[in-house]
Amino acid sequence: MSRFAIAVHGGAGTILKSSMTSVLESQYLKGLEDALKSGYEILKKGGSSIDAVEAATISLENFPMFNSGKGSVFNHEGKHEMDASIMEGQFLDAGAISGVSGIKNPIALARLVMEKTEHVYLSGEGAINFAKKIGVKIEEEDYFFNEFRYQQWLDIKDSGAVKLDHSDKKFGTVGAVALDINGNLAAATSTGGMTNKQFGRVGDSSIIGAGTYANNKTCAISCTGHGELFIRSVVAYDISCLMEYKGLSLKEACDIVVHDKLVKIGGEGGLIAIDALGKIELPFNSEGMYRGFIDTQGILKCEIYK
Amino acid sequence: MSRFAIAVHGGAGTILKSSMTSVLESQYLKGLEDALKSGYEILKKGGSSIDAVEAATISLENFPMFNSGKGSVFNHEGKHEMDASIMEGQFLDAGAISGVSGIKNPIALARLVMEKTEHVYLSGEGAINFAKKIGVKIEEEDYFFNEFRYQQWLDIKDSGAVKLDHSDKKFGTVGAVALDINGNLAAATSTGGMTNKQFGRVGDSSIIGAGTYANNKTCAISCTGHGELFIRSVVAYDISCLMEYKGLSLKEACDIVVHDKLVKIGGEGGLIAIDALGKIELPFNSEGMYRGFIDTQGILKCEIYK
Repeated sequence: MSRFAIAVHGGAGTILKSSMTSVLESQYLKGLEDALKSGYEILKKGGSSIDAVEAATISLENFPMFNSGKGSVFNHEGKHEMDASIMEGQFLDAGAISGVSGIKNPIALARLVMEKTEHVYLSGEGAINFAKKIGVKIEEEDYFFNEFRYQQWLDIKDSGAVKLDHSDKKFGTVGAVALDINGNLAAATSTGGMTNKQFGRVGDSSIIGAGTYANNKTCAISCTGHGELFIRSVVAYDISCLMEYKGLSLKEACDIVVHDKLVKIGGEGGLIAIDALGKIELPFNSEGMYRGFIDTQGILKCEIYK
Repeated sequence: MSRFAIAVHGGAGTILKSSMTSVLESQYLKGLEDALKSGYEILKKGGSSIDAVEAATISLENFPMFNSGKGSVFNHEGKHEMDASIMEGQFLDAGAISGVSGIKNPIALARLVMEKTEHVYLSGEGAINFAKKIGVKIEEEDYFFNEFRYQQWLDIKDSGAVKLDHSDKKFGTVGAVALDINGNLAAATSTGGMTNKQFGRVGDSSIIGAGTYANNKTCAISCTGHGELFIRSVVAYDISCLMEYKGLSLKEACDIVVHDKLVKIGGEGGLIAIDALGKIELPFNSEGMYRGFIDTQGILKCEIYK
């Protein structure tokens, strides 16, 4: 029997139906759906989960309403600094980048780090130099310009405040997890960070074990939430360990980590998860999470609120 | 009953007795011993484990023969780029920095990130700007100059090769773990990276969960080894999970991770570990590891080889 499935997210946080229009809502859902389909097409043809999560994440990065790639928020210097990571569950190979500017698809660069270098994690100017060296096209700043994001930044740039995303508590991250017909799991996460962020702050999105993890024995995970708390809780790997060492199901492990451990430490957010049988969980402890999946039956579902 | 104990390391790798002189050997051992004593003095007076691991790591950073702080190796641009992280086990607070230059004691800056910001992880230029803003003294490049390290770099700088440290397989990192009389665990790790490293490569030393982890429920861990493999294996948190979820002892968990899981994936190196009872383990799968401890009986021991 061959099964395959995919899930994506576009960030978690305070997403209230009362502050959403039906037009906006359908645009967000379309963004999720397009990403799911781009990954699912690959899986359906027998392609790999790593190709599928990369394609889905690229689709989300190119969609201007999620905080990653084209839709990235402005940092304190009025620039875009992006983080991303990717991992595959067969050999535990992984790639990650942080603090890169001018990269259209940070997730593709993370994958190049995984496949074209002996390293896992490249950061800042060095990561950009690596991108240039291997011929990745560097985009001009105006590719990332977005009037809405710019206004968000202008509103707070002199206040010293740091916004997570466009509401006070919206964690702008995208990600994908998938299982392919060969039983291989993969996970990908990408973010534009926090509006007005300073000091080269790095969240969980580029940290293997915290924001991203995949292991064929257990699960593939991509997180979105208050990055600092997710790092301290090593969230993605924690779920894998609860399954591997304690024998919990994916759902039981997700419940403990998202609804108990993270809540106790004040870690707001959520994650998307898939296990080796293609079972999908999309837990979050915030008001909402942009999320969707196509399961092993081929059923597509996208949601925003609780 | 009040117990306290501390362990330190100065890196693992191919450290052969045949290529060591007795003078060099006693210098290395003195470096470890001084670090242990500086941390132990704090613990003996009832001080905290976080103060103890910071003090011990500062002592190692100031010792020019280990690859961290003053003894950091040269990167591809002939500069010093350092990474560090620190974590305490009571509240799971943590701080980390990567890719910083000009910082005398990166571990102290990691602790300032933990205590003076809402963030966990700052990188590169941004982390240096944070250091300047809070008044951390920036050292001139010549503070870090070391003829031996410089020759190592000159030897390979045009080859494109990347050296881990002064032998082909010496992982230059320092670290400390401690238990204080209040039952609090803490861990710290600091490194000068790899000679001739390019592209802003980040290893496990600044990654919470990979190179550093502390949790009063289980253990405190500081790693030294082939950073990429340690990141992919989420080594430090893995030991904690094996104890918490599988009920293993510290020794059993260390054996599985260092002598089985890491070996299978090709991950050479080691780590220092202490549990909530003050039991210490110093496992490594390489030829040697600069290591030492003062245990709950007050017995001091430092070693280099297998």
